[in-house]
Amino acid sequence: MLNFVHSIPTKIYFGKGQISHLAELLKPYKSILLAYGGGSVKKSGLYDEIMGILKEEGCKVTELSGIEPNPRIESVARGVKLCKENGVDAILAVGGGSTIDCSKAVASGVYFEGDDLWSMVKERKTPPKALPLFVILTISATGSEYDGGGVISNMTTNEKIGASFTFPTASICDPTYTFSVPKYHTAAGAADIMSHIMEDYFSRTPDSDLADGICETVLKSVIRNLPVALAEPDNYEARANLMADSSIACSGIPRYGKQASGWVCHGMEHQLSAYYDITHGVGLALLTPRWMRFILKKDPGCEWRFVRFAKNVWGLEGEDEHALALAGIDALENFFRENGIPMTLTELGIGTEHFADMAEKANFGGRMNNAFVPLTREDIIKIYEACL
Amino acid sequence: MLNFVHSIPTKIYFGKGQISHLAELLKPYKSILLAYGGGSVKKSGLYDEIMGILKEEGCKVTELSGIEPNPRIESVARGVKLCKENGVDAILAVGGGSTIDCSKAVASGVYFEGDDLWSMVKERKTPPKALPLFVILTISATGSEYDGGGVISNMTTNEKIGASFTFPTASICDPTYTFSVPKYHTAAGAADIMSHIMEDYFSRTPDSDLADGICETVLKSVIRNLPVALAEPDNYEARANLMADSSIACSGIPRYGKQASGWVCHGMEHQLSAYYDITHGVGLALLTPRWMRFILKKDPGCEWRFVRFAKNVWGLEGEDEHALALAGIDALENFFRENGIPMTLTELGIGTEHFADMAEKANFGGRMNNAFVPLTREDIIKIYEACL
Repeated sequence: MLNFVHSIPTKIYFGKGQISHLAELLKPYKSILLAYGGGSVKKSGLYDEIMGILKEEGCKVTELSGIEPNPRIESVARGVKLCKENGVDAILAVGGGSTIDCSKAVASGVYFEGDDLWSMVKERKTPPKALPLFVILTISATGSEYDGGGVISNMTTNEKIGASFTFPTASICDPTYTFSVPKYHTAAGAADIMSHIMEDYFSRTPDSDLADGICETVLKSVIRNLPVALAEPDNYEARANLMADSSIACSGIPRYGKQASGWVCHGMEHQLSAYYDITHGVGLALLTPRWMRFILKKDPGCEWRFVRFAKNVWGLEGEDEHALALAGIDALENFFRENGIPMTLTELGIGTEHFADMAEKANFGGRMNNAFVPLTREDIIKIYEACL
Repeated sequence: MLNFVHSIPTKIYFGKGQISHLAELLKPYKSILLAYGGGSVKKSGLYDEIMGILKEEGCKVTELSGIEPNPRIESVARGVKLCKENGVDAILAVGGGSTIDCSKAVASGVYFEGDDLWSMVKERKTPPKALPLFVILTISATGSEYDGGGVISNMTTNEKIGASFTFPTASICDPTYTFSVPKYHTAAGAADIMSHIMEDYFSRTPDSDLADGICETVLKSVIRNLPVALAEPDNYEARANLMADSSIACSGIPRYGKQASGWVCHGMEHQLSAYYDITHGVGLALLTPRWMRFILKKDPGCEWRFVRFAKNVWGLEGEDEHALALAGIDALENFFRENGIPMTLTELGIGTEHFADMAEKANFGGRMNNAFVPLTREDIIKIYEACL
């Protein structure tokens, strides 16, 4: 096990009706920025319920609406401007990872000195202070409700970059809010949860029993609960397990004592969404098994990790370790496909035209050089090609 | 899954040499209470290292030494008095659960109004404020480095009671400090870790995949690493895994969404130590399998949980579910015995003389009435008898 420093400053309010804590959480604040995406929050009645609570508390409410699925720097800038103009002293993000990520960047951006907010993201210039952020989660996916990071896109430069901003002070995680999430986004969200785990699981460190076991636990929980949630969208147990999995996947605990793996599938996927604005979880799902097959071929020394994955996550058995490793990868690909995720770039209308640029950007800052299996620009292009 | 609210305000500094962070952690404070137990901290050189750092920082240091293995209310009172006399503004606890628990009670006790500190513990009168507490952990066992609770004994009244005090602000968890822990206490500590997990694992809630999987992961990690740590006391990987297991076991995550089980083995064990001052983990180890056999007989409706325990923790298989459930319990008992833990009260020189009083006190506040399998006073006496 390697050294690590770990803390989770976010308080979780998990379960049905936990919105009952919202008034007490926001009591110290007078001017709230209410951040959300599209109309689903209004359609579900959640918007009205929240506005009722905020009015009851006598809060001034400023709205930042229309946050995009891959949230853009323009929305961050709009939020920062609204906060400054309205003396906002806390942010309430209602939605999924995009809304939360954008809200984190706004919370930090208020204290950013200078006009170029994109440089805060790209050049890692997050100020030490941020506005307090509260979250009401409506989809199980990114884990942004339980970590300090966010991913912001700049469609002008085709860049999508993750950075550290601020942890939510508290997150209300009510699984019933995810009953209305459509099948496609439920499955994509589950793929995102699994990817967060797999990015940490595939590591050179062989002796972190706790972290590896937690990774396997979360993966098995998603594998068990996603099909149930798709078949019965209002199955509370399935939705609740997926929501808990989402938070723990990004808690940092699954990488306790493990060598950083580079989060290469996220690096490659961010380019897909930066160029084509696709759903993040879908990009991850189709990239991951192709990445796995590529690195297993490139470096057979990592086979032991795939054998463990096949046995402990998929319950596979067999004498031939190489066959077992491949069977685990096949099981993952089949799982995604069976749960309705398009598993080729062709299905998404994406061709080879930007692969070279995307591969270049995916290796931004040399992040692939110290990966679980280091990848060159050419390697990344080959992985994209395998996804066609 | 049931509703829950969860937070861990403690920051963990895990790994070799993390004491390098001590100076920065204590920088805001001027007068430190240094709390520790016996001579092992001095023998190992850790005491001198810490004093060097504190002097370098120009801190005033007041010492609270000689904290007992089952820390007593008199030590808490002594610590509170020292803090008040010396204007202490932070506490540094160096040791295991006893030192940390006592230090938590001191941190809270400083703000307790009134003279009867025992009433703060027994009547749950913890004040809302506490002194900041920092921990340097030297044994993997109680998880007190990562939770807000503590257990304090009153040997005058033969009472040992757990209460909520305060979370450490930060805990330095360096596995090398546990290299010198003797075999007996290494094993007893591991039994304590396992007990924390089993108290949460044996719950009526069948659908908390994440929590149950994390429980199984921690148990398997202890089962794998304890024998290695006993055979090779300075095996870093084994010691590191046990230390990480210790913290996560008390993190609250293993009971995410699960029905409270009553922590009955802890309730029964606290009476053993309150009357006989035995090692907490040893008491837990010998009680747990006997408690398991008793409740399995009393309520066959809980058999499914024991079957899962046998399969997922011990890797046992078989058609006959009842036999499998019993085999899992046998495996646990054998594991403790093989790792050198005395598994009968007789070996510890304990007879039946106080069983009736102990059973009465173990059910203090009716804690056994809503347990995983509810226990009466007579049931508890029978379990004690099975341990003879």
